[in-house]
Amino acid sequence: MMRNWVTGLALLATAATTSAGAATPGRGQLQAAVKAEHSANVKRLQDWIAHPTIAAEKTNVDKGAEYMRGLLLDAGFQQAKIVPTSGVPGVFATLDAGAPTTLGIYFMYDVKQYVPSEWSSPPLEARLVDRPEGKAIVGRGAVNQKGPEMAFLAALRAFKATGRKLPVNIVLVAEGEEEIASPNFHEVIANPEVQAAMSKAIGVFIPGAGQESNGATSIDLGAKGAIELQLISSGEHWGRGPAKDVHSSLMAIVDSPAWRLVKALDTLVADDGHTPAIDGWFENVVPLTARQKELIAQGVKNSNEVETKAQLGVKQWIDNEDYLTASYRLAQQPTVNIQGLVSGYTGPGGKTVLPGRAEAKIDLRLVPNMTKDEAVAKLKAHLAKRGFSDIIVNVSGGYGPTQSDENSLLVQSQIRTLKRAGVEYSLSPRLAGSWPGVTFTGPPLKLPAVGFGLGTGGGAHAPNEWYLIHSSNPKVAGFDESAMFYVDYLYDLAEMAPKGR
Amino acid sequence: MMRNWVTGLALLATAATTSAGAATPGRGQLQAAVKAEHSANVKRLQDWIAHPTIAAEKTNVDKGAEYMRGLLLDAGFQQAKIVPTSGVPGVFATLDAGAPTTLGIYFMYDVKQYVPSEWSSPPLEARLVDRPEGKAIVGRGAVNQKGPEMAFLAALRAFKATGRKLPVNIVLVAEGEEEIASPNFHEVIANPEVQAAMSKAIGVFIPGAGQESNGATSIDLGAKGAIELQLISSGEHWGRGPAKDVHSSLMAIVDSPAWRLVKALDTLVADDGHTPAIDGWFENVVPLTARQKELIAQGVKNSNEVETKAQLGVKQWIDNEDYLTASYRLAQQPTVNIQGLVSGYTGPGGKTVLPGRAEAKIDLRLVPNMTKDEAVAKLKAHLAKRGFSDIIVNVSGGYGPTQSDENSLLVQSQIRTLKRAGVEYSLSPRLAGSWPGVTFTGPPLKLPAVGFGLGTGGGAHAPNEWYLIHSSNPKVAGFDESAMFYVDYLYDLAEMAPKGR
Repeated sequence: MMRNWVTGLALLATAATTSAGAATPGRGQLQAAVKAEHSANVKRLQDWIAHPTIAAEKTNVDKGAEYMRGLLLDAGFQQAKIVPTSGVPGVFATLDAGAPTTLGIYFMYDVKQYVPSEWSSPPLEARLVDRPEGKAIVGRGAVNQKGPEMAFLAALRAFKATGRKLPVNIVLVAEGEEEIASPNFHEVIANPEVQAAMSKAIGVFIPGAGQESNGATSIDLGAKGAIELQLISSGEHWGRGPAKDVHSSLMAIVDSPAWRLVKALDTLVADDGHTPAIDGWFENVVPLTARQKELIAQGVKNSNEVETKAQLGVKQWIDNEDYLTASYRLAQQPTVNIQGLVSGYTGPGGKTVLPGRAEAKIDLRLVPNMTKDEAVAKLKAHLAKRGFSDIIVNVSGGYGPTQSDENSLLVQSQIRTLKRAGVEYSLSPRLAGSWPGVTFTGPPLKLPAVGFGLGTGGGAHAPNEWYLIHSSNPKVAGFDESAMFYVDYLYDLAEMAPKGR
Repeated sequence: MMRNWVTGLALLATAATTSAGAATPGRGQLQAAVKAEHSANVKRLQDWIAHPTIAAEKTNVDKGAEYMRGLLLDAGFQQAKIVPTSGVPGVFATLDAGAPTTLGIYFMYDVKQYVPSEWSSPPLEARLVDRPEGKAIVGRGAVNQKGPEMAFLAALRAFKATGRKLPVNIVLVAEGEEEIASPNFHEVIANPEVQAAMSKAIGVFIPGAGQESNGATSIDLGAKGAIELQLISSGEHWGRGPAKDVHSSLMAIVDSPAWRLVKALDTLVADDGHTPAIDGWFENVVPLTARQKELIAQGVKNSNEVETKAQLGVKQWIDNEDYLTASYRLAQQPTVNIQGLVSGYTGPGGKTVLPGRAEAKIDLRLVPNMTKDEAVAKLKAHLAKRGFSDIIVNVSGGYGPTQSDENSLLVQSQIRTLKRAGVEYSLSPRLAGSWPGVTFTGPPLKLPAVGFGLGTGGGAHAPNEWYLIHSSNPKVAGFDESAMFYVDYLYDLAEMAPKGR
């Protein structure tokens, strides 16, 4: 889930001021239970952060799934099982309340890599620190996504502690490869037992914490797809150039895999340095609808361009576009990004080698109606057509774009809870970041799927990632308020759901 | 000095069979002195290897110069002084024998970086190990260039030990930045005292150890120039793109310094991936002379293409050229090489960042009559003309090509010593690798300058660098034989020199 990075571009739609808690029976009792478990919940979150699963490094892979399973059973799920995949296993759990309505929940239990030396406190210690926003936990995975997920589990624990039945049933799937672009998550959903259970849900959300300092949050109706891949030019594979690094003076008579990669890369974007130039790339791209543009325009009105640019360290948008045009482009433009380049000598200064290998780390962001398979096939055909069949295309993960209907029961019930909580909210038509919502919104499930929750945090994918526990700002939820928000939501959903579904 | 890598392309010219030692008075006594000091000399070499100076890492910079100075004084130089430069200091030493002839010697006291984990024995321990070639020292700098230099000092020590006067005077300059392309070595030569002393020399050589298994060696009459530089695309410097790494989804609206670098790089070589495409690059390039081509053709006849390709892990030369054409090209073609690429995320798999910075490590090899200043100016003008003035060109070192006359007294006297030693030798018209010989062959000194010596070794710039101490092959010199070869040479030079010079 990659919501946080773009808080500066939040797209506010509607403010609401109804008072909170009106429709939650026994709210005081549930709230007391959340408070009573506060310290234990924070401790649970800290312990979870201390056990990171990092798919890219194959760290804590089986133990992480087992840990996730334990947390779910302990929170009240009646059954939770490990679902093996070709990669890191998933977890599938159900909480049957005998209710007519079933809600789907998506968790990720993996976290991003980290470099401890870049952190002000050890990334796995999950220390409670004072910030301007209040008391926060600093640790890898704090906001992305363990903190918000633990707040959701805290809501379930309150039901368990008070002996109350949930007003809806819960079907939950968790994956351990979100941070490497979910290469195997479809296998979890393809499991017949999981698919049968999930197909009963009215929709799916992933707990999130994206409140701004004015309390505003958003429901993200869609997100771009993302494909992560490496383009590798290798002398050994190519059959030209050296099999390993050789002395750089040989550049006169030995082909260079690094130059080969540069020449291949050069064909992938136009000379402007950003417009994708892969053959047929825009063929299936659907323009933004009038409603989507309307939502974006509303958001731009309520967003501060100067602050956003300062946060990102950016002076100009691409082509010096104005904020509205750039915001349309952010939602609409498919991208071909270089995440990293690595070849030969990478230390200080230089070293006289001709490298035997060069690699570009690439991500492709896709918009409707592009698909992962289409994009990979087009990239390969593009390279082959230009004689670059020797360039290895190693697709390490990815999925297509996701889009949910704002008129779905899932979203409408969420809006209701936001309104009665008096939280300003926006509808974001399409995140430029990505999450594997298409696993739910695509076939066979075709369920709406969004991110949802209160609270805040920052530093996802960066050092000093944090998640707010005690808020010093009455407009922004801390951990307990976030948990109660989910409690309220379950009742709102149950009440709005057509009976029998 | 980068001779060793291309032994497979050695260019043999003439075999000679005259018996050794005819012209060296008191040779037996000198040889006995070399033998008596053998263990102490090996120990000196090991101690020197244990104290590496690495300019790229600023390791042991001042201590390395002091160490060098101590070794020189101990070997019989009457004076040796540190010569400060803008970078790592040089060392200047003289040994005045009251002789009519003065020989210049060039030393480098720095070594290449190393990664200890890649070595079979610790790179600074300089262990004596058994190899097929005999007993060898394994350590960083063993053959490049401390071993051959210590053999030369062993020759001087033999004079000292026996109380004999040298037949020629020696003027020596040592630098500590050879491995970063000698960015400040011209400052050492520009020192008036150094220049005055060096201008008396008939020529300059750097001790080297490039004998092949059949005993053959070469005198390298020339070498390409080399410029080491980094091309840096930085959002901060450019004023576009991000000041630091940001989330990769921003590729839709934020310019990418990595793509910028790819687009700039792409203009520097033709679509064949190797021919330099920098404006005016070939303007001052002088073709090979008939004599140079003749020497190369002789070398190719005596060289094994299949073995050379296997050593390098190369299946095809550029453009599938035959060996002779490739050998001409190796000597003649100026090159633009990518030593390394580094940007953003460089670990396993991917990471969703849009990097704020991208760097290409480049080396340019120059042939006569290209110059360093010309090349740097043309590169900058080329980039500016295409709108890439934002790309930082950081020149970290370099010098122009060097060329010496085979008819000079320096080379002719060397040939004489090789002949009477019965060593097959070649004249190599131009190394594809580089050394800062132009500091001597260019103005103001305009002296011939070459590499010269017997012995062998390998692994320069690579793990397990080695230098042969005891040879198991009668055709290849060990340490003591290499020292005696220099003793013989000093007498040959004195004898051939016109009196009064």
